[in-house]
Amino acid sequence: MAVKKTKPAASTEAAPEPAGRVDLGLLDGLLGYRLRRAQLAVFQDFMTAMKDYDLRPAQFSVLAIIEANPGLKQSRVSEALGINRANFVALLDELEQRKLARRAAAAGDRRSNALYLTPKGESFLKEAYRHLLQQHERRIEAVLGSADKHLLLSLLDRLTAL
Amino acid sequence: MAVKKTKPAASTEAAPEPAGRVDLGLLDGLLGYRLRRAQLAVFQDFMTAMKDYDLRPAQFSVLAIIEANPGLKQSRVSEALGINRANFVALLDELEQRKLARRAAAAGDRRSNALYLTPKGESFLKEAYRHLLQQHERRIEAVLGSADKHLLLSLLDRLTAL
Repeated sequence: MAVKKTKPAASTEAAPEPAGRVDLGLLDGLLGYRLRRAQLAVFQDFMTAMKDYDLRPAQFSVLAIIEANPGLKQSRVSEALGINRANFVALLDELEQRKLARRAAAAGDRRSNALYLTPKGESFLKEAYRHLLQQHERRIEAVLGSADKHLLLSLLDRLTAL
Repeated sequence: MAVKKTKPAASTEAAPEPAGRVDLGLLDGLLGYRLRRAQLAVFQDFMTAMKDYDLRPAQFSVLAIIEANPGLKQSRVSEALGINRANFVALLDELEQRKLARRAAAAGDRRSNALYLTPKGESFLKEAYRHLLQQHERRIEAVLGSADKHLLLSLLDRLTAL
């Protein structure tokens, strides 16, 4: 496997050299690696589209799950998204501080909170989603085309069932 | 607990029910979310296959990049993989403790280390990779078929160029 040498970096120029010039070696043959690169690129595009909303993918996910399942327990929301408990608590604290979501006592379970969007959270999420469709999803469709996008979705779903 | 059905299911393409039948709401319409679910499933399968090797995807990536680019600077390896500095240092410490990789002074740059695999690291990586192909990649091919796997790879690469 060839080592693609890059230029020695000029000491004052801290500009990162493009990742493409590093030889990927064995990684290139692994589907998981290629999947991860694509996912990172799509999340980066998501964040660009959501810059004015100050919303990361994980935050959007939590708002969307709460909207679709009002009153769902905190533990079930974090499970559904595969976010660990510590990260989830911090994430929810921030959404509460921004008055987008709120915790309430869950019926019959003192140790767990039920989650709801605030009215502000509801309209914020709707607006952010509309913006996402117009910017982010539209860019993806421009790159893939509608038919290939649907093809990709069905291939991804087969992997999710792995 | 409110368990809502998601979209009316097209019975031929029945997607797995994510984490206990929580309604995905707006998430279901976002390609990034579906991509993330698939990536997590594939990484989970990777970890299952690598259990005896005690190797996570990020660790494997670092070993593979070092193998293909011996002597590459630490900062360039972390950049190429998009791993932040703090996480990368911890990850590398562990690989050094296991005697799989080593840091050496980089020529002309005292502040940065050049990275190499140890002989043990070289053979460990080769063996782990062979096992990955036999288990993990073979399972993926069994699910997708060879033609659809290649189709998926080309679709993913178009997204990576987003």
